[in-house]
Amino acid sequence: MPFFLSEEIITMATGLKVYFCGSIRAGRGDVEIYGRIVEMLGKYGTVLTPFVADPNLTVHSAEEGKAKTDKEIYDRDMSLLEECHAIVAEVTQPSLGVGFELGRGVAMNKKILCLYRPQPEKRLSAMVRGAEKDGFFTTKDYKEEDLPAIFDDFFQNFLRRDRKDSLDWKSYEPM
Amino acid sequence: MPFFLSEEIITMATGLKVYFCGSIRAGRGDVEIYGRIVEMLGKYGTVLTPFVADPNLTVHSAEEGKAKTDKEIYDRDMSLLEECHAIVAEVTQPSLGVGFELGRGVAMNKKILCLYRPQPEKRLSAMVRGAEKDGFFTTKDYKEEDLPAIFDDFFQNFLRRDRKDSLDWKSYEPM
Repeated sequence: MPFFLSEEIITMATGLKVYFCGSIRAGRGDVEIYGRIVEMLGKYGTVLTPFVADPNLTVHSAEEGKAKTDKEIYDRDMSLLEECHAIVAEVTQPSLGVGFELGRGVAMNKKILCLYRPQPEKRLSAMVRGAEKDGFFTTKDYKEEDLPAIFDDFFQNFLRRDRKDSLDWKSYEPM
Repeated sequence: MPFFLSEEIITMATGLKVYFCGSIRAGRGDVEIYGRIVEMLGKYGTVLTPFVADPNLTVHSAEEGKAKTDKEIYDRDMSLLEECHAIVAEVTQPSLGVGFELGRGVAMNKKILCLYRPQPEKRLSAMVRGAEKDGFFTTKDYKEEDLPAIFDDFFQNFLRRDRKDSLDWKSYEPM
């Protein structure tokens, strides 16, 4: 049985908090895949930023989640970033906000998984591809059908490596 | 001699080191304005990242500056980011790399100026607009003719505020 379908693990992992990053104002072309990613991530823990995948949220929306001004959005997102145990970013659509969150996340020593769908005639930023750091930052080129195995690997191995023997995410602190 | 290094500019250069951010792989549509910005910045100090404004650098270039692999580019850029006194970013073209550099720069307490040319039907990321912090992070909506006054203001007032009375950038340390 895959890791993410184990009832025991689901129950034990509910303390895990994941910050999901996707483009908002730079373009919503990938919002449907964001939705499917957020749904998959929900099997491992709580996604702190489900509004990123809200199909009603457009580049013109006056609110993001319940935050209204840019300052409110920024302060809320930075607070959630501090709170999370792991960051998962869909980086196919170039976005200042996603890049910013990744930069702050690296500085906070968060565990980071970036997901990229290779595009003809486009190349992923060297600031993402070159940030690879064993145990902390990894980028996966993917097709959607690969996601369950990628998440399994990330949450089972990549994240667990410095968690000692505890499955209690509530007491987890990054190294 | 490359276009961005005029003899006059070298002579006028102080110890101030500026990290300029602009889109590379997310699109080079603004490269000409990057060139004019880098030339203007050269009047205030040394621009550590003139290759960003190199018109020969395309989204497909195998090298950026003299760095070849994504890891080399990343390591070189992060080292220059640590080294700089101030960051100036042109943020009109959404870019993961620019966002990442801004995120890391905020975490390093760098003085940051973002420059945005308002676009119809587009909005600047809340991670940039909402990051406004007095004395550290400011975003200016601009037209190109505004740039000299914006730079004068940034370098004379915004940056100087915690430099005591010294004009010696070599001994400057961020707060």
